[in-house]
Amino acid sequence: MITVQASSAQTKSLTQYVKPLNGTQRMGHVYPGATVPFGMVQLSPDTDTIPYEMNGKYNPDVYKYCAGYQYDDATIVGFSHTHFSGTGHSDLGDFLIMPTTGALQLNPGTAAHPESGYRSKFSHANETASPAYYKVKLDDQNITAELTASARVGMHKYTFPEKTQAHIILDGMHGIYNYDDKNVWTFFRVENDTLVTGYRQTNGWARTRTVYFAMSFSKPIKTYGFRKMDPAQAYRGFWGKFKQDKDFPEMAGHRIRSYFDFDVEAGEAVQIKFALSSVSTEGALLNMRTEIPGWDFAAVKAAGEAAWEQELAKLSIESKEQETLESFYTAMYHAALSPTIYMDVDGRYKGLDQNIHTASGFTNYTTFSLWDTYRALHPLLNLVQPQRNADMVQSMLAHYDQSVHKLLPVWSHYANDNWCMIGYHSVSVIADAVMKGNAPFDANKALDACVASARHRSYDGVGAYMDMGYVPEDLSGASVSKTLEYAYDDWAIAQMAKKLGRNDIYEEFLKRSGNFRNVWNPATGYMQAKLKDGSFVTEFDPLSTHQKGYIEGNAWNYSLYVPHDPKALIALMGGNKAFVRHLDSLFTMHLPDEFFAHTEDITRDGIIGNYVHGNEPSHHVAYLYNDAGAPRKTQERVRMILKHQYKSAPDGLGGNDDCGQMSAWYIFSSIGFYPVAPGSNQYAIGSPAVDKAVLQLGGGKTFTIVAHNQSAKNVHVKKIVLNGKPFNGYNIDHETILAGGVMEFYMEN
Amino acid sequence: MITVQASSAQTKSLTQYVKPLNGTQRMGHVYPGATVPFGMVQLSPDTDTIPYEMNGKYNPDVYKYCAGYQYDDATIVGFSHTHFSGTGHSDLGDFLIMPTTGALQLNPGTAAHPESGYRSKFSHANETASPAYYKVKLDDQNITAELTASARVGMHKYTFPEKTQAHIILDGMHGIYNYDDKNVWTFFRVENDTLVTGYRQTNGWARTRTVYFAMSFSKPIKTYGFRKMDPAQAYRGFWGKFKQDKDFPEMAGHRIRSYFDFDVEAGEAVQIKFALSSVSTEGALLNMRTEIPGWDFAAVKAAGEAAWEQELAKLSIESKEQETLESFYTAMYHAALSPTIYMDVDGRYKGLDQNIHTASGFTNYTTFSLWDTYRALHPLLNLVQPQRNADMVQSMLAHYDQSVHKLLPVWSHYANDNWCMIGYHSVSVIADAVMKGNAPFDANKALDACVASARHRSYDGVGAYMDMGYVPEDLSGASVSKTLEYAYDDWAIAQMAKKLGRNDIYEEFLKRSGNFRNVWNPATGYMQAKLKDGSFVTEFDPLSTHQKGYIEGNAWNYSLYVPHDPKALIALMGGNKAFVRHLDSLFTMHLPDEFFAHTEDITRDGIIGNYVHGNEPSHHVAYLYNDAGAPRKTQERVRMILKHQYKSAPDGLGGNDDCGQMSAWYIFSSIGFYPVAPGSNQYAIGSPAVDKAVLQLGGGKTFTIVAHNQSAKNVHVKKIVLNGKPFNGYNIDHETILAGGVMEFYMEN
Repeated sequence: MITVQASSAQTKSLTQYVKPLNGTQRMGHVYPGATVPFGMVQLSPDTDTIPYEMNGKYNPDVYKYCAGYQYDDATIVGFSHTHFSGTGHSDLGDFLIMPTTGALQLNPGTAAHPESGYRSKFSHANETASPAYYKVKLDDQNITAELTASARVGMHKYTFPEKTQAHIILDGMHGIYNYDDKNVWTFFRVENDTLVTGYRQTNGWARTRTVYFAMSFSKPIKTYGFRKMDPAQAYRGFWGKFKQDKDFPEMAGHRIRSYFDFDVEAGEAVQIKFALSSVSTEGALLNMRTEIPGWDFAAVKAAGEAAWEQELAKLSIESKEQETLESFYTAMYHAALSPTIYMDVDGRYKGLDQNIHTASGFTNYTTFSLWDTYRALHPLLNLVQPQRNADMVQSMLAHYDQSVHKLLPVWSHYANDNWCMIGYHSVSVIADAVMKGNAPFDANKALDACVASARHRSYDGVGAYMDMGYVPEDLSGASVSKTLEYAYDDWAIAQMAKKLGRNDIYEEFLKRSGNFRNVWNPATGYMQAKLKDGSFVTEFDPLSTHQKGYIEGNAWNYSLYVPHDPKALIALMGGNKAFVRHLDSLFTMHLPDEFFAHTEDITRDGIIGNYVHGNEPSHHVAYLYNDAGAPRKTQERVRMILKHQYKSAPDGLGGNDDCGQMSAWYIFSSIGFYPVAPGSNQYAIGSPAVDKAVLQLGGGKTFTIVAHNQSAKNVHVKKIVLNGKPFNGYNIDHETILAGGVMEFYMEN
Repeated sequence: MITVQASSAQTKSLTQYVKPLNGTQRMGHVYPGATVPFGMVQLSPDTDTIPYEMNGKYNPDVYKYCAGYQYDDATIVGFSHTHFSGTGHSDLGDFLIMPTTGALQLNPGTAAHPESGYRSKFSHANETASPAYYKVKLDDQNITAELTASARVGMHKYTFPEKTQAHIILDGMHGIYNYDDKNVWTFFRVENDTLVTGYRQTNGWARTRTVYFAMSFSKPIKTYGFRKMDPAQAYRGFWGKFKQDKDFPEMAGHRIRSYFDFDVEAGEAVQIKFALSSVSTEGALLNMRTEIPGWDFAAVKAAGEAAWEQELAKLSIESKEQETLESFYTAMYHAALSPTIYMDVDGRYKGLDQNIHTASGFTNYTTFSLWDTYRALHPLLNLVQPQRNADMVQSMLAHYDQSVHKLLPVWSHYANDNWCMIGYHSVSVIADAVMKGNAPFDANKALDACVASARHRSYDGVGAYMDMGYVPEDLSGASVSKTLEYAYDDWAIAQMAKKLGRNDIYEEFLKRSGNFRNVWNPATGYMQAKLKDGSFVTEFDPLSTHQKGYIEGNAWNYSLYVPHDPKALIALMGGNKAFVRHLDSLFTMHLPDEFFAHTEDITRDGIIGNYVHGNEPSHHVAYLYNDAGAPRKTQERVRMILKHQYKSAPDGLGGNDDCGQMSAWYIFSSIGFYPVAPGSNQYAIGSPAVDKAVLQLGGGKTFTIVAHNQSAKNVHVKKIVLNGKPFNGYNIDHETILAGGVMEFYMEN
C-alpha cells in the first residue's frame, strides 16, 4: 500500500541533495535509475549490452557495465529492472523495456549505429535522476521516458510525441554480464489484453536464478508478438500447428524478445507496472496489486520520495557547502540501496535449496557483498537502521539454514552464493549486531552458525589455517589476505562468544585471532605469504597487487590489516614512531606509472600515495594513527581522503561503491568517527567534516555532533565536549552514542 | 501410507495373469517396470539411449524407444522413473539409476560394447515382470536389481554378489527422446549422507517441464561425485574456489551425471527410495515420507500388488483359455496405467501457468492422449473407475482454467500441452461423463469450456471450419480427418447441451455435427479433402496414408468415421447392402507390398485386409455392421480382431497401446459390447470372447455377462437374455448396465 508520510510535505527536502548520477562515470558502478530504500526493483537505464565474452574471450569492456549505465555513453538501450549498486563483478539487468515508434526493430543495435536497433540516443541535458525518479528524453523518436518504483514494482511512463503506433519492446535476452548461454530459460505469457507474466532463469554470477514477473499496461495491447532467437530446434511437440509469430499468447525458449503495440495520440502516455517475485508469477501479481493498485504515477513517485526523505532524515547534517551536502546525502542514498529486499509482500521467497520459504517475523534481504560491507556499511546500518540490520542478520541465518554447505553467506544474491572474494565476514556482521545489543534473534544459534562457517575445513584454505595457524600459499592462494581476515573474523567470533558466556569458543577463537602473527615477516617488515613448509615465498614485491598472497591490495596496504589489535601490529612494526613513519610513507610515496598499468580497478584518482581507497582493505588505515599516538594525523588523512576520493559529480567516486561500503566510509568519516573493528563497541574518532550531524535514535531521542569552527583548514580536533563535559581519548563507544546527547568538537588549524 | 488390503491374501490372484512384458517387442511401446495403478512413478528399465537426432538429422530408431525398453535388446542402460505407456511420440525417462561395481564409468556405453560404459547385458531368462514388481540380473557384474513403487515413489533394491565398493549412478542427462539441448537445467544437492534432492528441467514434447526429486539411500554414502558434461563455460562466479569433483554437495548445469559409492558385503543389498514431485524437492520428500516411511521392500511390493488386485477385480472374467486370461488382465493392467496422478500427497501440483495449484476435492491427473483415449479408454473408466474418470474430467477443467489459450487439453502431460494429433476430444470425454451421470462437477461450466474449445478459431482450422462447414485442405492439413472428428465432437457437445437445457448451444452444435456431409464426395464414395474454393483435391489415392487430407489413416478407413450417425453414413454410401459390401472389402482386400513400405506404424500384423487396428480411427468400424443389419458380421469381425491383433506375448500388440486405448478396445470387445459414440449412452453389442465377466458397480452391485457355449468357433450370438427376459436389439444402454443384473449370451457357430 502506498502511504505518503503526512509530514514529508512540511519538512525540508533532503532528497534534493541526492545525485544518483554521481559515480556513474568510470569506476563508481552505481546506477542512476529509480528505486526505493533497499528496494527489490532497481529500474534503471542501461546504456550498453556488452557481452561477457567476444569470440570466446573475456571482453574487458564488460566491467564498465556492472550497473548497466556509463555516463559517457551516448545511447540508452532500454530500462531494466534489477541492478547492483557499485559492484566489481555483475549479474542481473532483467527484463529490459524500451519504447519505440516507426518500423519495429527487435535487436538493440550498436552504440555506433543506434538506428540499427531499438536503442536511442540521449543527452544528459534531457536527463533527470533523483531518488525514486528518473526521466530522460529518447532523442531518436522524441519519446519521454519516466521511471519510478515501489519496493517490488517498477513503474514506467512513456509519452509519445505524435499519433502513431507505439511499440513497447520487452527484451528477455538482455542482461548484465551476459554470456551466450546465460539465459537458461524464458517463459512469457499474455494473460489478457493488459497483463503479461513470465519468468527468466539465468546461469551467471548467481548459478541458478529465476526471476518471475507480472507486467501490466495502462491500456489494452493492440497487437503483439514474440521472437525466438534460439537456433533452429529439433522436434519440440506440435506447437507448429499454431501461427506463433503474432498474437499467440505463450512463448518459451532460451532467448526471447517481444513487442507490444498500442495506438497512441500525440502527447499520450503508455504506463507500465512491472512487478518482480522470486516465488512465482502469482507472487509478482500479488506484489503489484498490493503495492501499486492504481495508475497514479505521480503518487507512486511521491511515495517513493517520501520513503527516501524518511530514510535520509535518520542521519541529517548541516554544512555550508553544497558539495558536502550533495556528497553526504548521495552517500546516504547509496548506503540505502542494498542489501535488497528479497521476498514477496506475503513474506515468501525462493531459498538456496530452491524451495519456497516464508520469512517469519523479519524482512528477508539478499545481495550481501560482505567482504566490502562488513567494514562500515553494516556498522552504519546498526546505528541508522537497527531494525533492518537485525533483519539482514536474520536473512544471513536463513541463508545458513538453507545452505547445503552450512556456510553463512560470502557474497550472496538471489538464493545463491557466488563465493566472490574471501573471508567469512558474515561473522563480523553478526558479532557487531550482537555486541551492540541489536540482536532480536537467537544469538547462540547465530554463534553456532558463525563457528560452523569458521570451521568449514573445505572452504578456501580454512582446514590448513586451522591446522597450521595460517593459510599456506601453496595450498590456497591470496593466503596473506585470507590469514589476516580470518584472524579478524575469529576475533569477532571470540567477542560474541565471550558476551554469550561460551567460554570454550571464546578461547578457541581468541587464539585463532592471533594468527596474523604467523604471516609477519620480521625480516622485511611485511605480512607475507608462507608455504606449507613454513618458509616465506621468496619472490616478493611489496608494491605489486599481483604479488602472490594478496587480493585487491598489495603488501604495503594489506600488512596493516589487524583491525582488532592495532597495538600488537604497531609493536610488530617497531613501535609508535616507526609505525607513524610507515603510515606517512604509505600516504605520500610516489608510485611509478607501471603500477597503474598493471593494477585493475585503480587509477591515480583512487589512490593517495600508495594508500588505496578505491579498494577496501585499507579503509581503517587512516584511523590507525590514533593508536600510535598521532591522532592529528588521523584527522588530516581522513579529511584528505574525504576531499580527494569523493566529489559530487558523475566521476565523483574513486572506486566501485561496493554496495554502499565506500559511501558508508564517507558517512562515518564526515561525522567524525569510524568503526575500525566491527564487533567491538568502539568507534575511532577522526575529524568531522560537517558543521552538525543529528542521528535519530528512535522515540525522538537523538545524538548530535557539532563541529565548531570546522572548515577545510580547521581539520584538527582541539577538544571534545560530550553533553557538556570534557571528553578524552580517541574512541567513543556505541552505548554512549545510544544514550543520546550532544558531542561538540572544537576544531582548529 | 501403505495399507495392504486384508482380503487380498484370501482372494485368487488376478495379477498372476498380467504380463507387463507383453507389447514390449516392436510396436507396443509399453514398459515392463514397476508402477501402481495410475501411478505418478513408472520405474522401469531402459534398454537404450538413442538420441532424437544424429548428425543434425532425425534418427528413426528413436521411435522404438518411446517407452525406453525394447524386448530384443541385449543390454539395460539403467532404471528411470517416468515412462509413457504405448505412445507414438515420447518424452520422460527422468533420473536414470544404475548400480555398478569395479572401475567407475559415468557414460552409458553402447549396446554393441556394453563394457564401454555403465550399462549391462541381461537376459530374459533372468527377468521377472509383474504388477508393481520388476526383477532382473545385470549380467556384467552379477548384480540383482529389483524395483517396486508406490504412487509417487520408486523403490530400488540392488543386491551385490561380493564384498566390494559399489557405485550407484544417477544420470541426470538420460532421457527418452533426448536432444542435445533437451536438458535445460539440472540441480543436484546432497542434503546429508543418505539424502539427495534436486530437479531436472527439460524442453521436449513438454515444452517447459520440471520434475523435482528426493532420493534416499538405505545406508550412508561413503563418497560421491558429480560430473558436469557441459562444454567449458564462461565466467560463472567463484565456485572454482572449491574442489567440486568429489564430495561437494551441490551441482547445477545443463548436463550432469553423478555417482554414489558404498562399501557392500557379499549378498548385501543397497536400497533406494526415489520420490517425484512437480512442486518442489520438499514436495518430493513429503511424498516419500508419507508413502514409504520405512525400508521394507517386500511390504511396498505387497501393497502395490494388493492395489493391482483391487483394480483388476473391478472387472473380472472367466475363461478356459490361459491366453485369454493373460490378454484380458494385461489389457486391464495397461488400461490402468494412464492418465497418471499428477499432484503431491497434499494435492499440490505445478499448473500450465507455472504456478503451484492445489487440487481441491479431486485427484489431479496428467498424460491425456485424448485423440486415442476418448474412444474406449475413458468410456471404460466411466464404467470401471467412475470416480477416477470424474477426477480426470476435473483435471481437464483445471487445465482449461490454467490454459492461456483457454483450450481443453489436446495431448497434455506435466502442465503442458504438446498439441499432438487433432480434434478437441476432451469434449467427448466430458460429454460421456455428463451423459452417463458421472459428473460430480459443475456441468454447465464444463460445457462452457467445451464450447470455448470448439469455437477457438485460431486452433487447427477451426475458424474456417466454423465459417465454411469443413476444414479446407489449403488452409489446414489433414482436413478430412479434422472435419470428421470435429463433427463428432460437436455432436457430443450437442448431447450434453441438450441434457443441460442449453438449447442455443444444442442447436449450434447439432448443426455442426452434420459437417461430415461437407467432405463427402459422392463421385468417388469417399470422404475427401476439399479446398477453400469448394472443389475437391483432385489427386486422390484412397489407400495411401500419405494422401492429403488424412492423418494416421487412409481414405478407406477414415471415410467410415461418423460414429454419431452411422445411419446417415450408410445412406451416403448407398444403403445397407452397399455398405456391408464396402466393409467386407475393407476387411478382406489384399494390399500391395508398397503400402507397407510407405506407411509408418503399420505392418501386415497390425492390419486385417485394409482394416487398420493399430491406429485408432477405425476402432468402431467392426461394430458398424450392426447398423447395416448385419450383426453377425460385427460378431465375426470383432472376434477376428481380438484373435489376430492381440496375443499374450512380448510381440502381442499390433500397434502402440496408446495410453490404454488399444487395451480398452480389447476389454470392451471381449466382454461383448463397445462404445461406438462416446457421449451417447449406448454400447454396440458384439461377441463376448470370455465365458463370464463380472463388473463391480460399487456397493456390492454387479453386472454379469455370461456367454453360454462360447468358443473360438461359436462367435455368433443366437440370443440374449437379460435378467431372465429376452433382450432384443444390438445396443445396450449405460443405465441398464448400472442397474445391475445378468446378461446371458447364447452363442452358436
